[in-house]
Amino acid sequence: IVNGFDGNGFKGISVHHVSARVPVSAAKLKARRQRWNVRASEMSKNTLNPIRAIVDGMKLTPNPEKPMIALSIGDPTVFGNLPTDDSVLQAMKDAIDSHKFNGYAPSVGYLQSREAVANFYSQAGAPLEAKDVILTSGCSQAIELAISALCNPGDNILVPCPGFSLYKTLAVSVGVQVKFYNLLPEKSWEVDLQHLESLIDDRTTCLIVNNPSNPCGSVFTKEHLRNILAVASRHCIPILADEIYGDMVFPSCEFHSLANLSSDVPILSCGGLAKRWLVPGWRMGWILIHDRNNIFGSEIREALVKLSQRILGACTVVQGALESILNNTQAEFYQSTIGFLKSNSEICFAELSTVPGLNPVMPSGAMYLMVGIEMEHFPEFQNDVDFTERLVTEQSVFCLPATAFEYPNFFRIVVTVPEEMMVEACGRIREFCARHYRPLSQESNDLDQ
Amino acid sequence: IVNGFDGNGFKGISVHHVSARVPVSAAKLKARRQRWNVRASEMSKNTLNPIRAIVDGMKLTPNPEKPMIALSIGDPTVFGNLPTDDSVLQAMKDAIDSHKFNGYAPSVGYLQSREAVANFYSQAGAPLEAKDVILTSGCSQAIELAISALCNPGDNILVPCPGFSLYKTLAVSVGVQVKFYNLLPEKSWEVDLQHLESLIDDRTTCLIVNNPSNPCGSVFTKEHLRNILAVASRHCIPILADEIYGDMVFPSCEFHSLANLSSDVPILSCGGLAKRWLVPGWRMGWILIHDRNNIFGSEIREALVKLSQRILGACTVVQGALESILNNTQAEFYQSTIGFLKSNSEICFAELSTVPGLNPVMPSGAMYLMVGIEMEHFPEFQNDVDFTERLVTEQSVFCLPATAFEYPNFFRIVVTVPEEMMVEACGRIREFCARHYRPLSQESNDLDQ
Repeated sequence: IVNGFDGNGFKGISVHHVSARVPVSAAKLKARRQRWNVRASEMSKNTLNPIRAIVDGMKLTPNPEKPMIALSIGDPTVFGNLPTDDSVLQAMKDAIDSHKFNGYAPSVGYLQSREAVANFYSQAGAPLEAKDVILTSGCSQAIELAISALCNPGDNILVPCPGFSLYKTLAVSVGVQVKFYNLLPEKSWEVDLQHLESLIDDRTTCLIVNNPSNPCGSVFTKEHLRNILAVASRHCIPILADEIYGDMVFPSCEFHSLANLSSDVPILSCGGLAKRWLVPGWRMGWILIHDRNNIFGSEIREALVKLSQRILGACTVVQGALESILNNTQAEFYQSTIGFLKSNSEICFAELSTVPGLNPVMPSGAMYLMVGIEMEHFPEFQNDVDFTERLVTEQSVFCLPATAFEYPNFFRIVVTVPEEMMVEACGRIREFCARHYRPLSQESNDLDQ
Repeated sequence: IVNGFDGNGFKGISVHHVSARVPVSAAKLKARRQRWNVRASEMSKNTLNPIRAIVDGMKLTPNPEKPMIALSIGDPTVFGNLPTDDSVLQAMKDAIDSHKFNGYAPSVGYLQSREAVANFYSQAGAPLEAKDVILTSGCSQAIELAISALCNPGDNILVPCPGFSLYKTLAVSVGVQVKFYNLLPEKSWEVDLQHLESLIDDRTTCLIVNNPSNPCGSVFTKEHLRNILAVASRHCIPILADEIYGDMVFPSCEFHSLANLSSDVPILSCGGLAKRWLVPGWRMGWILIHDRNNIFGSEIREALVKLSQRILGACTVVQGALESILNNTQAEFYQSTIGFLKSNSEICFAELSTVPGLNPVMPSGAMYLMVGIEMEHFPEFQNDVDFTERLVTEQSVFCLPATAFEYPNFFRIVVTVPEEMMVEACGRIREFCARHYRPLSQESNDLDQ
């Protein structure tokens, strides 16, 4: 008995799918493929990465006489000047040495790790328990799960403009329409509330609020957040709060999580270790479910759990280290990062605000600074893409054109580069603008009067 | 000038989304929600986990007089008897100490890590380069990306029965139909090729082949794999080869990767560190793109790259350790794991093949063993779910009913448990069957003759 069946052949089996042993009909054969023709899915074709599309279309040939300075990369680790804390690395090594974190975790994450996140982010006005936390493979998966749980094809979501391009990428790929609401640079990038409200219709299933903001570096006041909540509350729209830069604000202002200011609007707050702990590659993100009025109820919670089972979430070693990372990282580490970002932002802002033709907007947090280009003073360039392309050719400085954030005629500067690089880059931008700036003619001045 | 704009107000800005400042019409207002009504998406509702659905519906109350033995958990790390190799853990600590792997990796993974995978899996008949490798967050994401790249809603895929439930979960959630092709237990779970071929139609976009198999523990011969390839070739269907248990075969047989046997059928081979290196929680998977006849071409490669950008892939620390893990793990480690799995399989098979009413099928690899139940001899139980539920109640032994793999009247045993537990569990199963076995009546024997 080699395979467990006795000499009488196979017994006791019940094959519930009937084998079709009838000859295949000619008609059926015709319906089959006669030659190879493998096509990519519609979903993959609809998965668009605007940053790649724009950057790949640019001719980025630096000036060989000047070393390249990339102010474009949203990765704080690339220059080595902003390392994570030693205690964070030690927590990882301890997790490995424990031999406890190699097997499968629950798809929503270890209970103990979720408890640690809940404790860390619990606030008086927005209490959290482990059941309110879902650990994900980076904040990207948190956003993906939230959109996938709340939206059907044909629904629409409200997305900030300028804003992080992933919202649109994820939504469009699953047939969800994106409506952009304007942020107002002259009001420190506050939301144009009237515009926001005008976009809402009966297929609007989610409002995305990104605070602090990529690419703006803005931080909303408590009052402004309350105004946003009022819109959501009035129209019964749940909020996806992208708070990955939460607590990364300059000492002069304060970060308020949306959930702590609302008792009725249900909020999925997405975050992770990437930015504040300076380890974006580790892919440790989370969703915090705030639902004090029981509007999401068990339905949305179950939806999130089910979706988390598709590919499971974060690496268990990072999950195992999470409690220690959250509880044992010293305040000095956070303060030092923020001090550096603020100082670099001030250097950059001070430099560029005296450059004719540029309008930098001073950030209050995160790690970005947006600069408006007065295109009418740079007639050689059609738009921000042209402008930033030529900045590479002549000065070997690369800034991301804000067309990548659906916001033409601005560019984004990442302020995580070493200070001397920032100073050098700003000097080169000044030189570039001086060379290409054209004052408006007397005639057009007359017209203005 | 606080925010970078001069006293004349904001200048040079071009808001490209027109703000709607007109009053909202009454008609439009009516279309808006007047009360909270947040519903989970169709996709989340269509994300079904058959194992959870079945297990959650079972009354699993162990016999308090016998300690529980779970033969159900497909995680080799849970009992501590199959630790990963020290060199694997050291590679992780080295990656952490290098400080080089904290930032973002490319969405398809570090070039060096992909090169290491390509070198490790390259074969004469199926050469690989770094460009043929996409690193993913576990083999689950590899399978998800492959299905998402190849299939549109309304297409169908061919899936083994019995088979790993995730294929169906992922396919159905994106509107792809699943057609099950039968495996034949009496032929060591080989594919019923005629049945397979009969299922193909003009919307069939992918054939999933899982070898070695979960839940069967079967390993296909070279000849059988060639027969499967011939079907795919004849009907021009690309293959998703789930080879996560690749090389985990008992010394008496050999593992052949599908790609090494074909020069025309385009194959996406999915694998990862989970099983062979015994670290399933680390979520390190990959897709190997085999396309020697250039049938996938750039279209499918680009589709996979685009989809990989949605949430990025594997944790960078594990990516950083990957080259060392692949190259420095000693043969003894793999052999020791396989020796244990074989020995435990033999113990289990020898025990259960002498139990009246059971038909175990001896595996050749992976870490599972399927047992057929002659239901006609157990009239107290309706099916495998009833049978395994009562096995818990009476004997505190839990085996997963194979209904979870779309294959009723079998159950699956995971052979990674410590040997003494396996022996004890088999003894209890024997006792359970002895108690409930009913010989067929003389009458029905007569009918057989």
